[in-house]
Amino acid sequence: MYRTHTCGELNLEQLNKNVSLAGWVQRSRDLGGMTFVDMRDRYGITQLVFNMEENRDLCLEARKLGREFVIQVTGMVTERSNKNPKLPTGDIEIVIETLRILNPAEVPPFTIENETDGGDDLRMKYRYLDLRRPTIRKNMELRHRMAQEVRRYLDSQGFFEVETPFLIKTTPEGARDFVVPSRMNLGQFYALPQSPQTFKQLLMVAGYDRYFQIVKCFRDEDLRADRQPEFTQIDCEMSFVDRNDVLDAFEGLAKHLFREVLDVEIEGAFEKMPYDTAIAEYGTDKPDLRFGMKIKELTSLVQGKEFQVFDSAEFTGGICAQGCAEYSRKELDVLTDFVKRPQIGAKGLIYIKCNEDGTFKSTVDKFFSAEELKSLADQFHAKPGDLILILAGEQSSTLNALSELRLELGTRLNLRDKNTYRPLWVVDFPLLEWNEESGRFHAMHHPFTSPKMEDLELFDTEPGKVRANAYDLVINGVEIGGGSIRIHDEKLQKLMFKNLGFTDEDAVEKFGFLMSAFRYGAPPHGGIAFGFDRWVALFAGLDSIRDVIAFPKNNSGRDMMIDTPSGISDEQLKELNLSLKY
Amino acid sequence: MYRTHTCGELNLEQLNKNVSLAGWVQRSRDLGGMTFVDMRDRYGITQLVFNMEENRDLCLEARKLGREFVIQVTGMVTERSNKNPKLPTGDIEIVIETLRILNPAEVPPFTIENETDGGDDLRMKYRYLDLRRPTIRKNMELRHRMAQEVRRYLDSQGFFEVETPFLIKTTPEGARDFVVPSRMNLGQFYALPQSPQTFKQLLMVAGYDRYFQIVKCFRDEDLRADRQPEFTQIDCEMSFVDRNDVLDAFEGLAKHLFREVLDVEIEGAFEKMPYDTAIAEYGTDKPDLRFGMKIKELTSLVQGKEFQVFDSAEFTGGICAQGCAEYSRKELDVLTDFVKRPQIGAKGLIYIKCNEDGTFKSTVDKFFSAEELKSLADQFHAKPGDLILILAGEQSSTLNALSELRLELGTRLNLRDKNTYRPLWVVDFPLLEWNEESGRFHAMHHPFTSPKMEDLELFDTEPGKVRANAYDLVINGVEIGGGSIRIHDEKLQKLMFKNLGFTDEDAVEKFGFLMSAFRYGAPPHGGIAFGFDRWVALFAGLDSIRDVIAFPKNNSGRDMMIDTPSGISDEQLKELNLSLKY
Repeated sequence: MYRTHTCGELNLEQLNKNVSLAGWVQRSRDLGGMTFVDMRDRYGITQLVFNMEENRDLCLEARKLGREFVIQVTGMVTERSNKNPKLPTGDIEIVIETLRILNPAEVPPFTIENETDGGDDLRMKYRYLDLRRPTIRKNMELRHRMAQEVRRYLDSQGFFEVETPFLIKTTPEGARDFVVPSRMNLGQFYALPQSPQTFKQLLMVAGYDRYFQIVKCFRDEDLRADRQPEFTQIDCEMSFVDRNDVLDAFEGLAKHLFREVLDVEIEGAFEKMPYDTAIAEYGTDKPDLRFGMKIKELTSLVQGKEFQVFDSAEFTGGICAQGCAEYSRKELDVLTDFVKRPQIGAKGLIYIKCNEDGTFKSTVDKFFSAEELKSLADQFHAKPGDLILILAGEQSSTLNALSELRLELGTRLNLRDKNTYRPLWVVDFPLLEWNEESGRFHAMHHPFTSPKMEDLELFDTEPGKVRANAYDLVINGVEIGGGSIRIHDEKLQKLMFKNLGFTDEDAVEKFGFLMSAFRYGAPPHGGIAFGFDRWVALFAGLDSIRDVIAFPKNNSGRDMMIDTPSGISDEQLKELNLSLKY
Repeated sequence: MYRTHTCGELNLEQLNKNVSLAGWVQRSRDLGGMTFVDMRDRYGITQLVFNMEENRDLCLEARKLGREFVIQVTGMVTERSNKNPKLPTGDIEIVIETLRILNPAEVPPFTIENETDGGDDLRMKYRYLDLRRPTIRKNMELRHRMAQEVRRYLDSQGFFEVETPFLIKTTPEGARDFVVPSRMNLGQFYALPQSPQTFKQLLMVAGYDRYFQIVKCFRDEDLRADRQPEFTQIDCEMSFVDRNDVLDAFEGLAKHLFREVLDVEIEGAFEKMPYDTAIAEYGTDKPDLRFGMKIKELTSLVQGKEFQVFDSAEFTGGICAQGCAEYSRKELDVLTDFVKRPQIGAKGLIYIKCNEDGTFKSTVDKFFSAEELKSLADQFHAKPGDLILILAGEQSSTLNALSELRLELGTRLNLRDKNTYRPLWVVDFPLLEWNEESGRFHAMHHPFTSPKMEDLELFDTEPGKVRANAYDLVINGVEIGGGSIRIHDEKLQKLMFKNLGFTDEDAVEKFGFLMSAFRYGAPPHGGIAFGFDRWVALFAGLDSIRDVIAFPKNNSGRDMMIDTPSGISDEQLKELNLSLKY
């Protein structure tokens, strides 16, 4: 036995007890007659004392301890004269009797503190040291806690955890698959799942009624800042449900997590907002409802005033930033630069300042009378002191730019408090979206999403207008999860595949097993999948998922620590009958 | 809302209530004036009644319902005149007012009952129907329950669940890896983990102290009857522990599962048995302790009696089957055929019958006097009525054959009760085993296993005699899990790699990150991994893991339902710069 206690639990209750501890040297201070060592483990920090007068040899040995040495000590719990109220163990220290170095340590390549001097690449290479930093450890602890609470809750609600396979079949829809060559079936491949979608539907056909799994999924995509080739999903499915049954069930889960993990009580039902409203009022399908500042469309109101920008724009819209009329030229320039960034791509920014004296000052004074400006301001219920910001251009990109501008202002005005949570269900998404490149419709969610039954006849006339019985959970502007009621009828599934441009052969080859399953008694069903990494990041107050993943990959899909992907042996290639050339 | 209740919960408490239910038609009986339908869901079976006199149209509709149709009904809970005490809902039936067919069903290709007429291939192809059979559903429910209890217990003991990556690095040791070509790093591959071994050790270096995960692992092996290319492990690791700390912790887990899942109380500490003893007394490193019948070595006792078989044998040993002296010639022939099967490979079987009258009858009467036979019988403390069975030959294959024979007799004599559990720790395995083919030592567990410190000096003289600080948990002859104290010292790890015939370059290329981690403060640590599929199968009373896995693969590694592995498109191959020819 290496220890009687951890470094986080001793206090005055154990006074004068003999204890043994094991852990890492966080830091050591040599004050002449005394040497103090802060010893760390996962549970906390405990101060060790070595006394030169009482035990010279031991004290000299202690002075040689370097940062991150692993040691084991025995000694007596003693009251500290100089207490540290910030530490749970701050009332005591251990007067050391024996010291054993279990493993020495080289000087780490960066400091093991919350504020470290290690750059990203260095920290990733030595991730096992990075994970020692308290801030990262707390993220992992949060992730652990959330995973336990997710399962505890879903188990209590009768959900079955069922493991679905990882070696599955490549599918023609969605992102690119990672594939796995089969040695026993040469020339053939498995694919790693992008999600357990078809399996969870088959579990519903199997009558399992309520299914969940916290499961790794894989997408071979070019990685943007916040994407990982492997990510974790809370994957769920229910039978004999309509949309509101699903939303109620997972509102329950979300409230449970808020309560148990963050100690936050979310009152009342989550707001529901149709996709069209979200786009019109917030310019995005994942609005941050922590603040208002809704977008107003001004297109027809501002046309015919000889102002070319408005007259030629497909869409003009604006937002009202309360109390910002005093923004300086420089501040407005910063906002203009913000919307003109290539990622946002607006041509320019038009403002109307609602001065405290009731007058208006605007970029477009030349084209609009004071009265006309006032009537524009009234659209926003703007008050003296408010600032109206207007963008014009192609509709969807302008709405997107307004959304980004709104979020930027929300941040600047401190309207996006990290401790305020505003969950929202976005519903009634379009079922299909036109893809210019392929010249056909793609499924906005996936090809198993049910259309809204009242929109079925639109398939013949305007397929783009058919709404999906789909929903996303958005919290504070972050999409935490999404799902839908699924198709459970073979004919409707065939119609859907047809609209997606699948040939019958394609459909049978890729999803024959699902179509066949629908013929043997498939219940109505629906479900949802949550991005677990993202949900943990949200609860951790982080923007990136990287720091809630123990061993993440970089933007080239590489694990810098173990240095993978890497070459494989000729022997392995030969066994798989593969060569490295197309 | 499709239902107010499930098919498993109604009883007399809901008498005269109007309810709605949804589920599958299990069977329907048409008794002239009445039609009875058994309706099934995950939760149970409820009887529906349609009355010809009261509602002719509805009753006629009900008569058209086929097996496995999905229906929704409303009606009133009524007391049954003919109660069924076997069903929790057997006191009531529902007099149906409305019936809606949610989805019709074709006649299933096999019966959805515990005893089905479907063969293995057919059931695997339609696994979603096979999963409907109550016996399989109960296995899945057991698996769910066990997974929840594993996590609940380990969480309560301070273990962190940490997800380790699936896209890792191919390793030179162990079984064959599945590899995943990288599109972003052409010519390079990830490997799927055979276990998270190195990552869990790095989590210990990171100071996470106690880690667990229920996680999929992958091995590209030629599949024997009870192997799957993907399987599930309960993977655990602890810091600052010696062997007994680990055994205590996981004895706690095992006892918790026995208690919570099976309602079985295991009293006292689990027995510990050195590997050498297990081999000597049971002929196997996973002895079934539900019965005795230990192997006794007879080699030197039986030599010099002119019996060529014994005289030329490296090893002679036997077991004593109590009360079997009356076995007929035919029964003995069956046992002889059993040990002569190619899988076992004994040349023949020698017996000594201890007759009730104190005399002996034996295959070797010619060579052994009655007194000599008695002294052999005394080795086994045989009593009149017992049967001694003896095998001779090469040592390890003979011990193995004796082990198989012992188990066979245990089964025949009903000594292997499925409701009796005898857990055992097998300890002190050899560290290395000689591999004739490669002409070098291989790690018996894996190259990170610590030798027993007292055996270190044997490395120089007899490496094959070095014992590992390793342990297996064996229950009723099934190896449920295994683990070890790990090496945490860079020098010892290097020595180990050297003994395994790794060059320094190999070691650095494949495990450089781990060697490097050992230099920055690695704590002493150890752990264990349990075969979750096998543990569930044991608790389910099944010999095969196939029926505790929702979507298993067959012996060629194929999923018959989704028909994978399968071809991939030229476009996919091109993107990966691969061609299907070595």
